[in-house]
Amino acid sequence: MRFGRIATPEGMTFAVIDDEGTTAKAIAGTPFTDPEYTGKDYALEDVRLLAPTLPSKVVAVGRNYADHVAEVFKKSAEHLPPTIFIKPSTAVVGPGAAIKIPEYATGVEFEGELALVVGVPCKNVKAADWKSVIRGVTIINDVSSRDLQFADGQWARAKGIDTFGPIGPWIETDLEKFDFANLPIKAHHTHNGVTETKQDSNSNQMIKSVGEMVEWVSESFTLLPGDVIATGSPAGTAEMVPGDYIEVEIPGIGKLGNPVERA
Amino acid sequence: MRFGRIATPEGMTFAVIDDEGTTAKAIAGTPFTDPEYTGKDYALEDVRLLAPTLPSKVVAVGRNYADHVAEVFKKSAEHLPPTIFIKPSTAVVGPGAAIKIPEYATGVEFEGELALVVGVPCKNVKAADWKSVIRGVTIINDVSSRDLQFADGQWARAKGIDTFGPIGPWIETDLEKFDFANLPIKAHHTHNGVTETKQDSNSNQMIKSVGEMVEWVSESFTLLPGDVIATGSPAGTAEMVPGDYIEVEIPGIGKLGNPVERA
Repeated sequence: MRFGRIATPEGMTFAVIDDEGTTAKAIAGTPFTDPEYTGKDYALEDVRLLAPTLPSKVVAVGRNYADHVAEVFKKSAEHLPPTIFIKPSTAVVGPGAAIKIPEYATGVEFEGELALVVGVPCKNVKAADWKSVIRGVTIINDVSSRDLQFADGQWARAKGIDTFGPIGPWIETDLEKFDFANLPIKAHHTHNGVTETKQDSNSNQMIKSVGEMVEWVSESFTLLPGDVIATGSPAGTAEMVPGDYIEVEIPGIGKLGNPVERA
Repeated sequence: MRFGRIATPEGMTFAVIDDEGTTAKAIAGTPFTDPEYTGKDYALEDVRLLAPTLPSKVVAVGRNYADHVAEVFKKSAEHLPPTIFIKPSTAVVGPGAAIKIPEYATGVEFEGELALVVGVPCKNVKAADWKSVIRGVTIINDVSSRDLQFADGQWARAKGIDTFGPIGPWIETDLEKFDFANLPIKAHHTHNGVTETKQDSNSNQMIKSVGEMVEWVSESFTLLPGDVIATGSPAGTAEMVPGDYIEVEIPGIGKLGNPVERA
């Protein structure tokens, strides 16, 4: 089942999105329980999709793809293992919302990633049990100013600027339909009207598996419903500038597209 | 005026604390508006003080005291300027609550710091205007596992583990009574029954001033009411172990005391 959040003429609501991505059926509560339909249906083209979750925090695993570690950090993953950083809730925007780059944030790149959406409050989850605490999966673009990232040392600012965390288009709750050890991830970059596929990788390149990340992260942080775990970016990240458009694609979830603007 | 949050037999509530720190007068709303008293008064010894704010994020400025940069990073501040990191809301606990150290978090130190509590949603605040967006000040203990901090590179885990962010005892809103360029900060460390003052410094050692930090942080992050800006730790941080007790003291605010336990 796909849960989205939509802006309608009557206000914001969570909704169940049909498999064709054409209709949104409004629900009374949140994506964390079985849906209680309000009876209000919308054509998806008549409403605006918002970020499908309102996380208290986005816990992100960095350096989790060996190919990306090599391209950005010029080291092997053996010498530079995965690390954890946090993107604040204020960085989150939805599908279609502009990524707004301030003047001081130079060398800004897209990073298409699989995102896990936490379903229940949890701590110290074992890797094998990860599906019991994750409500579903979605896509995150872990927008990063490479220059700030290396100048600051800490990544909070480079990756936490307002709008630097597009999430969507919706939460897919049917975890059984995915092979998380073999899941393609692509990012398509449109610049000057020309679209190129810059990221074209697969979760089989992950250093820590999805379950291992849930165990690792939940060992330190209590996770709350709606919190997001960003599972790391594969190789192929590239600079984007105002006027560009980025679309991250994961089969079985869909596409997360965002224009790039000057803040 | 001092705003606290208290656990009473009737439930949790915000309250105004008297200057003697003996009485809590419950209020109907939050610390972000003029207090509307409910008429319920409590002796402070009969209730439990909780963290006085529920931040969506704690934005922390690291390496903001030259003496602390020298002791921890073995470099001059000129070569290692201040940086920004984020502590998640799940790290926050109140006065008296235990700091719980997991086995894997070794070399855990206390860091007593002045904390600013944001009063209104804001972005791009100028340094000179900082008091217009800050509701008041309190104390934070930026608990840090030095070993994880240097092993991970990113500080989110070392400083973001559950309970690693004690805040309190209350929010002092009378900003005019402080000289923020000359404010003493102390941390008293009790180990094996012996109390020593380990941190004994002053905000005159800050590299970025309070106003400059508000400008710097709000340039990147929208700040929300209740959010906390941790202004950096002076020298004198030291390792603490289960069984210890840490009390951070800032004149005009009060004392934030927390026991240390094994998680």
